[in-house]
Amino acid sequence: MSEFLWPVRVYWEDTDAGGVVYYANYLRFLERCRTEWLRSQGLSQQELASVRGVQFMVLEVKVAYLAPARLDDSLVVTCAMRPEGRTTVRFAQQIWRGNPGESGTELLLEAEVRVVCVDAKTLRPRRIGEYLP
Amino acid sequence: MSEFLWPVRVYWEDTDAGGVVYYANYLRFLERCRTEWLRSQGLSQQELASVRGVQFMVLEVKVAYLAPARLDDSLVVTCAMRPEGRTTVRFAQQIWRGNPGESGTELLLEAEVRVVCVDAKTLRPRRIGEYLP
Amino acid sequence: MSEFLWPVRVYWEDTDAGGVVYYANYLRFLERCRTEWLRSQGLSQQELASVRGVQFMVLEVKVAYLAPARLDDSLVVTCAMRPEGRTTVRFAQQIWRGNPGESGTELLLEAEVRVVCVDAKTLRPRRIGEYLP
Amino acid sequence: MSEFLWPVRVYWEDTDAGGVVYYANYLRFLERCRTEWLRSQGLSQQELASVRGVQFMVLEVKVAYLAPARLDDSLVVTCAMRPEGRTTVRFAQQIWRGNPGESGTELLLEAEVRVVCVDAKTLRPRRIGEYLP
Repeated sequence: MSEFLWPVRVYWEDTDAGGVVYYANYLRFLERCRTEWLRSQGLSQQELASVRGVQFMVLEVKVAYLAPARLDDSLVVTCAMRPEGRTTVRFAQQIWRGNPGESGTELLLEAEVRVVCVDAKTLRPRRIGEYLP
Repeated sequence: MSEFLWPVRVYWEDTDAGGVVYYANYLRFLERCRTEWLRSQGLSQQELASVRGVQFMVLEVKVAYLAPARLDDSLVVTCAMRPEGRTTVRFAQQIWRGNPGESGTELLLEAEVRVVCVDAKTLRPRRIGEYLP
Repeated sequence: MSEFLWPVRVYWEDTDAGGVVYYANYLRFLERCRTEWLRSQGLSQQELASVRGVQFMVLEVKVAYLAPARLDDSLVVTCAMRPEGRTTVRFAQQIWRGNPGESGTELLLEAEVRVVCVDAKTLRPRRIGEYLP
Repeated sequence: MSEFLWPVRVYWEDTDAGGVVYYANYLRFLERCRTEWLRSQGLSQQELASVRGVQFMVLEVKVAYLAPARLDDSLVVTCAMRPEGRTTVRFAQQIWRGNPGESGTELLLEAEVRVVCVDAKTLRPRRIGEYLP
């Protein structure tokens, strides 16, 4: 299970009046990383939907907020995919300030995201193995 | 040209690290008011799209930011529609803290929004008069 | 443990290109309900921060997405607070299409949200019992 | 007046049920570009606020929506700053699909954004010339 990294910069739009990133907006960062991981595997969600008739839907999210991100912070989002069942996969994800592993970095958030592959029209579950690496 | 009013409460999600509503989010408030005005006229955008095959698209927005809204503020958004051409209308909109006209209220924002009626598939302009009151 | 209900309408801003509410945006709906529950108890978060020097921070979120909400849907968000430790509470929350308990309603989402009370400056945990009912 | 370019990728979070980028979200893209232009000039808004006690506020926005951006689109946002008065500047901004000037690119949006420099505490206008290049 190798890990994919994606950088994210914190802008005004991401923050709230508490001076930190609004708690729902970290889920956007997590999704950008999953999307870019798919793209890095040569998978376009547009194409999966239009050509192959499938899309991915989030079934479950668990997030532990460890420390807040702030305006201008340079973050790194990670994701590692683990097959689960016939139709679902699980992503283990983290958000770091700075680069994971380097000195001075801080782990801000840990998440687990369960995703199902569905028929784009009927929304019925479909085998995920054909579409994911 | 009568005016339609819609109340909006400011939540954490709407604010930014400056302690005020993020400048793009006022456009959401403006759109909620236009949508509710349509609904008050018996028009559902879902239905217009699926049954009649048309939708509305914003062509132009002009916004003057006069004073900031803050967390927990109770706002009133107004909209007044003015027909323009065969395919477009213009909305004059305002955002107030408190009720417009009452003492202690403050005008926070003035906007003009130009909207076109288009075919939902081809996105080509369509006569707007059949769909709007 | 009594339950608090808050209505939410789905607007364009809440949806994504999949035609349903974007998965992170349900967390906004959950937070609006918690904020309105606090307000219903006479508690303003602005005042708690400025007068009493405390604020609430989300520590953990678990969300199960059961069925998607769509444009124009009329939702009801629920929240029920359960004291946990000296400094934390747990909210059990749900999002329904239509009114919970009535026929034709559908449960769309279940969530558990753990919140800590902190000093607004130092962000160190504070006894939550003094501030919550 | 030289032009600054900033790439933006369109994610699910940016789109709405119409299948295109939600009209308010283009204002986020515009702001990211202005922020990165400032950063490219060695200016951090965090530092301007905390060390020098000033911040920038948007006074006026004019946006012309020419064509919609879609999921996965690779956009380029431009900004060119023009001094105006003692306390204000004007940004001319555009959003392109693809790289401006190359074949196959399309201009999606044109905007003009008027920004004022204010004292971070009193919000009173301050000379902007000392802070901007």
